[in-house]
Amino acid sequence: MSNRYEMRFAGSGGQGVILASVIMAEAAVIAGLNTVQSQAYGPEARGGVSKAETVVSREKIWYSKVTAPNFLLALTQASLNTYTKTLAEGAVVMMDDSLDCPDYLDRSRVISIPILRTAKEKVGKAFTANIVAVGAINAALQLFTDEELMEAVKRHIPAGTEEINKTALAAGKELIDPAAAAAFVHRLG
Amino acid sequence: MSNRYEMRFAGSGGQGVILASVIMAEAAVIAGLNTVQSQAYGPEARGGVSKAETVVSREKIWYSKVTAPNFLLALTQASLNTYTKTLAEGAVVMMDDSLDCPDYLDRSRVISIPILRTAKEKVGKAFTANIVAVGAINAALQLFTDEELMEAVKRHIPAGTEEINKTALAAGKELIDPAAAAAFVHRLG
Repeated sequence: MSNRYEMRFAGSGGQGVILASVIMAEAAVIAGLNTVQSQAYGPEARGGVSKAETVVSREKIWYSKVTAPNFLLALTQASLNTYTKTLAEGAVVMMDDSLDCPDYLDRSRVISIPILRTAKEKVGKAFTANIVAVGAINAALQLFTDEELMEAVKRHIPAGTEEINKTALAAGKELIDPAAAAAFVHRLG
Repeated sequence: MSNRYEMRFAGSGGQGVILASVIMAEAAVIAGLNTVQSQAYGPEARGGVSKAETVVSREKIWYSKVTAPNFLLALTQASLNTYTKTLAEGAVVMMDDSLDCPDYLDRSRVISIPILRTAKEKVGKAFTANIVAVGAINAALQLFTDEELMEAVKRHIPAGTEEINKTALAAGKELIDPAAAAAFVHRLG
């Protein structure tokens, strides 16, 4: 398996996909890996699509751009339609289950779960959707330990919001069936 | 003047320099510019130094790494010492005035202001230091209008914190003497 793992996080402005990407990068740092986290804004940013990228590697990262992601999170239909066109072979796509899955995707590599609804109804705050997603992503890919992930979250949330974010992380983890997750686990080479 | 403007934001983890960098990139998007915002974490990230970068350009950005910043914000002594070694000619350095300015810097290009103290004592919340800095940076460089900057801030702060962040932005702006700022204003080519 390749040493380099490319992740893309996409949604609309305000859904916090940049923070989701930053938290995954921070978890990688805590786990002793090298990582580059970035946002490139071109004309599409004016269309309301927000996109963030995290590259993780055990070795020095010489090329920081994401070209063919191994993982995509999509929280809106527009971002799902746009960014499923440039995936690496065998890429895992996590999408909110309120969206329509494009026909050309391999369903066995798609994780369709109620991220937005879980944030709003179970955690009680719609703005925690990005943290719910982070919890679900790590439960599926198992890149980091729960402790590494929680520490990464703590470093990037406002003081006093630890509890609700911990709840959001756990709620995201619960969206992933551990048995089904076996197909998605990624071991960094 | 070059078309490309490179900015680096450095401090310790928890000072919010990533968010400062993200907000400047978002303001650039709102202003119709192209921008890349990134964090590269190598071994130095384990030392507690946090670093974020924003590249702004009127044209497409082909190379996203920052090599010789035109602007540096430094909120800790370690980050000031480290990142003043790789500046572009004529670069502007904004530092917290609690730090010692390295001898080799051209003092006429250094803006030493009480960012941390202003956040803590004037705004009343130490965690707003990054927003105070953003207000001061834009008052000095005048890359964006006040409205563009406030809109960028709004897109990246938790709901309900608009007022304190508005206060922090204004407090940062007040740290810059408009007459002195004339020397720092940057017009994108």
